[in-house]
Amino acid sequence: MAKIVEFIPNFSEGRRQDVIDLLVKEARSVPSVMLLDYSSDTSHNRSVFTMVGDPAGIAEAAFRLCKLAGEKIDLREHHGEHPRMGASDVFPFVPVKEVSVAECVELSKAVAERIWKELHIPSFLYESSATRPERTNLATVRNGQFEGMPEKLLKEEWAPDYGERKIHPSAGIMAIGARPPLIAYNVNLGTSDIRIANAIAKTIRGSSGGYQYCKAIGVMLAERNIAQVSINMVNFEGTPLYRVFEAIRAEAKRWGVTIIGSEIVGLTPVKALADCAEYYLQIENFDYKKQVLENHLL
Amino acid sequence: MAKIVEFIPNFSEGRRQDVIDLLVKEARSVPSVMLLDYSSDTSHNRSVFTMVGDPAGIAEAAFRLCKLAGEKIDLREHHGEHPRMGASDVFPFVPVKEVSVAECVELSKAVAERIWKELHIPSFLYESSATRPERTNLATVRNGQFEGMPEKLLKEEWAPDYGERKIHPSAGIMAIGARPPLIAYNVNLGTSDIRIANAIAKTIRGSSGGYQYCKAIGVMLAERNIAQVSINMVNFEGTPLYRVFEAIRAEAKRWGVTIIGSEIVGLTPVKALADCAEYYLQIENFDYKKQVLENHLL
Repeated sequence: MAKIVEFIPNFSEGRRQDVIDLLVKEARSVPSVMLLDYSSDTSHNRSVFTMVGDPAGIAEAAFRLCKLAGEKIDLREHHGEHPRMGASDVFPFVPVKEVSVAECVELSKAVAERIWKELHIPSFLYESSATRPERTNLATVRNGQFEGMPEKLLKEEWAPDYGERKIHPSAGIMAIGARPPLIAYNVNLGTSDIRIANAIAKTIRGSSGGYQYCKAIGVMLAERNIAQVSINMVNFEGTPLYRVFEAIRAEAKRWGVTIIGSEIVGLTPVKALADCAEYYLQIENFDYKKQVLENHLL
Repeated sequence: MAKIVEFIPNFSEGRRQDVIDLLVKEARSVPSVMLLDYSSDTSHNRSVFTMVGDPAGIAEAAFRLCKLAGEKIDLREHHGEHPRMGASDVFPFVPVKEVSVAECVELSKAVAERIWKELHIPSFLYESSATRPERTNLATVRNGQFEGMPEKLLKEEWAPDYGERKIHPSAGIMAIGARPPLIAYNVNLGTSDIRIANAIAKTIRGSSGGYQYCKAIGVMLAERNIAQVSINMVNFEGTPLYRVFEAIRAEAKRWGVTIIGSEIVGLTPVKALADCAEYYLQIENFDYKKQVLENHLL
């Protein structure tokens, strides 16, 4: 079976359509790689691509895109609402099929090394590729942004993983790393009281004592006048969807509130859903790899 | 994306290893087709193969296997516990990926026609390919078996769909058709009273007023001393697993019995599990085709 890696590069360009078109074209330039989706946000001035392919193809595509973005995007002239530190801002590699996180870590390091050697753009390794605990979190790594990086890099603990202690003049510096697939999952509550959504979010998110691989906040859905627990499941094998769903159900009870629905935003690996079926149907001794028909396809 | 059909041929040979080996070799002779599994039963004197491939490859493999089985198996000398009417007894074609049941019906007709024209083995179309309602059910079609077929074929309503009103002297006659994937699904009860499993089975199976695409009986699991509802889900899109599971839970309540677990025997299409997650997590507006990452892979 073929190894498949997902690659979700974030570029600091969401306004100039000609540059976005060139990046799209480049994303399609490696035969074994597919561009599944891309979206640009003008207020963020940022574009996010979703690509899949075999590891070698993805590595090549990542390099080509980084080279092109470096030629076309000048961070000194970039303004937008979203924090950023590089022309190619974040390069995450996600295992999808027959690939481990460890293999994606190796892939991320090989890509970062080539980008430094051939393009002279430095990088931090983040998430599963991080070389220190405080580099795991993207927000911590990117703190200070493009403008603050020259000073940050001179601090003892903030030498780049690849490159010298200075940014590329126009392309800045990047975060490159492997991470498990992320599922954007929202649970809608039968209440219009956002305080309840916030209170529930606090109980389930790892940062305040909840489930380790769950990030959550309360938000209002104005058009439906309901409160929602908006969640990022950053590792569905470590913290499965059903566990968070049932925890929300249990917490909501104390407010006399029910769950009226949930939603998955964008893509999900199908195993995240199969794991839920296994739980709710109480399936004994299920062997996902062997018993799912599709796992045997060419 | 590639079209994938599953093919599960049943051969009337489960004892002579040399013949089984030849059939296995032939099953692997078409490049775009994979033999996933095969099993032989000596008391049934029967072998079942599980294969997947693109439609054209599966059609070719079906023909080659039918030809070989016709040369090596003589029904006049065949004895076993399992009912049978042909050397190649049953040829079911199941849509797996990017293929509809209708396309599998066409495939089954093309295979049946070629088998008649080139091998002079007649066939009935059954299941979704059936040309009359009473030919849908395999047991009805095969009733009379090999020995009773010459007489049966002379009856007004039992002309073969392909071929004349007489069997092939040694290879008999076959059932060929398309059907949805079948999931063997068992639900274990917290009781050792088989009467409760039987009573529940009766309420859920289509033949006695239950769910249309559900077949069920009660059985005892002697080694665990528990009763089980043993189910064949013959169309999980028409009757989803969760619906039957919840119906069993509700029926079991009247006996004060709980579900202690369930099991999937063999393979399942992953969508059957994803559909259950969608129900239990109350996911709104889920688009399986678009939102499952794996559906976008090459």
